[in-house]
Amino acid sequence: MHKADTVVSVGNTKIGGTNLGVIAGPCAVETHEFLDQIAARVKAAGATILRGGAFKPRTSPYSFQGHGEKGLQLLREAGNKYGLPIVTEVMDTKQIDLVCRYADMLQIGARNMQNFELLKEIGQTNKPVLLKRGMSATVKDLLMSAEYILASGNPNVVLCERGVRSFEDLTRNMLDLASIKGQCHLPEIVDPSHATGRRDLIPAMARAAVAAGADGVHVEVHCCPEKALSDGPQALLPEQFDALMKDIRKLAEMFGKRIQSPS
Amino acid sequence: MHKADTVVSVGNTKIGGTNLGVIAGPCAVETHEFLDQIAARVKAAGATILRGGAFKPRTSPYSFQGHGEKGLQLLREAGNKYGLPIVTEVMDTKQIDLVCRYADMLQIGARNMQNFELLKEIGQTNKPVLLKRGMSATVKDLLMSAEYILASGNPNVVLCERGVRSFEDLTRNMLDLASIKGQCHLPEIVDPSHATGRRDLIPAMARAAVAAGADGVHVEVHCCPEKALSDGPQALLPEQFDALMKDIRKLAEMFGKRIQSPS
Amino acid sequence: MHKADTVVSVGNTKIGGTNLGVIAGPCAVETHEFLDQIAARVKAAGATILRGGAFKPRTSPYSFQGHGEKGLQLLREAGNKYGLPIVTEVMDTKQIDLVCRYADMLQIGARNMQNFELLKEIGQTNKPVLLKRGMSATVKDLLMSAEYILASGNPNVVLCERGVRSFEDLTRNMLDLASIKGQCHLPEIVDPSHATGRRDLIPAMARAAVAAGADGVHVEVHCCPEKALSDGPQALLPEQFDALMKDIRKLAEMFGKRIQSPS
Amino acid sequence: MHKADTVVSVGNTKIGGTNLGVIAGPCAVETHEFLDQIAARVKAAGATILRGGAFKPRTSPYSFQGHGEKGLQLLREAGNKYGLPIVTEVMDTKQIDLVCRYADMLQIGARNMQNFELLKEIGQTNKPVLLKRGMSATVKDLLMSAEYILASGNPNVVLCERGVRSFEDLTRNMLDLASIKGQCHLPEIVDPSHATGRRDLIPAMARAAVAAGADGVHVEVHCCPEKALSDGPQALLPEQFDALMKDIRKLAEMFGKRIQSPS
Repeated sequence: MHKADTVVSVGNTKIGGTNLGVIAGPCAVETHEFLDQIAARVKAAGATILRGGAFKPRTSPYSFQGHGEKGLQLLREAGNKYGLPIVTEVMDTKQIDLVCRYADMLQIGARNMQNFELLKEIGQTNKPVLLKRGMSATVKDLLMSAEYILASGNPNVVLCERGVRSFEDLTRNMLDLASIKGQCHLPEIVDPSHATGRRDLIPAMARAAVAAGADGVHVEVHCCPEKALSDGPQALLPEQFDALMKDIRKLAEMFGKRIQSPS
Repeated sequence: MHKADTVVSVGNTKIGGTNLGVIAGPCAVETHEFLDQIAARVKAAGATILRGGAFKPRTSPYSFQGHGEKGLQLLREAGNKYGLPIVTEVMDTKQIDLVCRYADMLQIGARNMQNFELLKEIGQTNKPVLLKRGMSATVKDLLMSAEYILASGNPNVVLCERGVRSFEDLTRNMLDLASIKGQCHLPEIVDPSHATGRRDLIPAMARAAVAAGADGVHVEVHCCPEKALSDGPQALLPEQFDALMKDIRKLAEMFGKRIQSPS
Repeated sequence: MHKADTVVSVGNTKIGGTNLGVIAGPCAVETHEFLDQIAARVKAAGATILRGGAFKPRTSPYSFQGHGEKGLQLLREAGNKYGLPIVTEVMDTKQIDLVCRYADMLQIGARNMQNFELLKEIGQTNKPVLLKRGMSATVKDLLMSAEYILASGNPNVVLCERGVRSFEDLTRNMLDLASIKGQCHLPEIVDPSHATGRRDLIPAMARAAVAAGADGVHVEVHCCPEKALSDGPQALLPEQFDALMKDIRKLAEMFGKRIQSPS
Repeated sequence: MHKADTVVSVGNTKIGGTNLGVIAGPCAVETHEFLDQIAARVKAAGATILRGGAFKPRTSPYSFQGHGEKGLQLLREAGNKYGLPIVTEVMDTKQIDLVCRYADMLQIGARNMQNFELLKEIGQTNKPVLLKRGMSATVKDLLMSAEYILASGNPNVVLCERGVRSFEDLTRNMLDLASIKGQCHLPEIVDPSHATGRRDLIPAMARAAVAAGADGVHVEVHCCPEKALSDGPQALLPEQFDALMKDIRKLAEMFGKRIQSPS
């Protein structure tokens, strides 16, 4: 792989090089009201991309599975209203066309990191891709999965460390921060929400990620996490996200990066 | 979940209850000649189901990806010629109809254990399913994935332990034999080929599986493993498979089970 | 390492080669009454070595730490009464002389597998050693720890697989059965009590161990596990141990081994 | 456990509260010349404690085992010459008195984190203790081991995260940065040298640790790592350490901490 840092454009913002990306939003798109409140707050705090799940990969078939196209519509509206590009997950090749009609960036979730048909077909779109590391994928596995997308013709891949399975039960997963350093030319961001599963640990791990040189962070934010239909315990409250953004801004400056507001 | 053991019919053979299933064959369907030789040998030795991959999930996009429909045809022919039901992997929802036209049983690979769209759509077919445990899936995760299939209307699921990721590099994965005991009513088989990645360890782990009470084993066999296009090092030679079958037969008898030849 | 199987003598019994060792007894030496009952039952069922802890490595300083020398005396008496050699753990170099006065075999626990001073000093005694694999030790690490003992002059080492730490919480540890196969000339036994932490899984994993070719098993047995001061949930009841011994005997015979009663 | 942050004094410096500790030095004490050069450089760069091993826990009995008392003498001399308190490892209860005559702080290595006799006896000294997390210890296990020391009467314990065993082979261990956050009142520092095993990753992980709120870092530094008798690949060069200290100072200031030079 070549050595110059790849910069990936997502709508009117960028991740990579000196551009620190901040992806924020709820785990799942739930109601218009929740999403609107959250989008307003993360935009005001300085997030650069809005996230939200319309198709949700859930361990149990009896858990909330997402609102599908209705969720995509709500996310698009919120993105438009607040001037934020949107990223959302695609779980199956049959969903690609639909999601491409709404989203600025396609997310491949950890459980699908080695869904090779999905990688190949997403590699044939022209949308930037957020590729999350599998729960027991080595960094080499992750790079090989990225290579599926690149080899299919799509060079715009952002890698995301989100923790791996371990024996430690203090946290939902174990954040493998060293995984992001110097392995490849693609931008690498960190998701402390999934990595820890704990609101109280997200700010410290997000700061650590930026200090370690990550190209961005991916943080779940919710205005009413106790009413969230999935993963409420790993969402920051808006005021916590405000405080975190202040820290991140200072750290970014220290390391010669900036958070460029989409415009 | 209910407690009486589920018995799953695959073509004219059964897995579960007192029926010990023996799934054998090459990792990938390669040539007619190889497959024919292997099928003849595993049938003669007493295997009950023939396996072979036509769609291959490979870590690298530059590795052999399988022969697709041509592979399915070859596998069907070999199954018909030797009177063996066939099982083969489905990697994507778009492949389901095609694979259903050829196969007696659908395999969901470890990397797709939480490909929930695939689980749901396979749950709508009437084919028995071989669901392999994900590389870092807990037993509870595996049962939840089975539940996706059951909840979609297909009760014929066989679970397969194939080792999990660990720090130990002596073996490709770590066989978690305790995972098969007493957790649910579905048949549970063991794949010592993927669990160890080493030909020399397969017989011992296959014997262990039967002694522990597994409902079957899944063993890769190849007549020329040095020419195999994938996973040659974890395939038994036909004569090793012959010897293993003798041991398995004795162990099955000791524990009140039998290997019923399809007829 | 040389290839002929090493046979280790422990009192008047042997482990290795065609000799299947069966080490059984309570986790900790508690009272004379409990120990006497248990020793009587495991002897009657065919165990070849009696185990019991006098110095107990406990995660918490507030848990029962063992009876020390008093425990060693009780264990020695029970061994003498029932004609069973005894094995017990040494936790520190300062305990070696004391334990050597009572025990026939010295156990090095999983937490001390890389306590190199302990390994060196035990290597200078003439007692056979039961070396348990550390909770995250690779097989190579285990062999290097054995090498510390051998290099200090003591060739009588029996290795013990007792499960490793993993993400799976169904069992206390994950039994890595493949670890025992063909890596070295030293006898290798399996401890399904610590590997699973669950009474219901011990018999299946003990059978699996013998079928895989282990040179022995190490099973905790207690007549009143609900009153045990440590690890009650992973002890078999005497009648369960009786049943297990019948299975083990049949399996041993199938694989050309025998359980030789000490005499 | 009580909630006010414990501040641990080591010689004339402190770790905990607003005091960021920086422990630096070679893996092993080798020659006077090497140690003197390294001590001069780490002192000049702002380290607060000098480290170096005299008793070395090595996986293989054939690797360099440390210079023993001679190493302690050299370390003491270097500490005195440069005005730095010294920390060094104790591997066995029999070494405690000897090491206490030379060292300001006693290190308990990862392999001895559950060497409970060692914990108890070190708990009876009045020396501050650096307790490293075991390779597969949970945070709860680590806190229980600290409790052994506290319960024996010694309240001056500093915890050290140094990575845990995992399936990822990119790094020697996996740094579990989340482990240091908010679990207890004791100071918690991070060792990126052992956590990564790679010189190129140490600065980023050290910065991350400080940004996450660690009470200090533990970094191996060597002037000639290619000649080091152990762990050369995970030692920073002195000029790299200089650069790292500048970053750490800025980060400390940002988070309201300071590195107090011993005086």
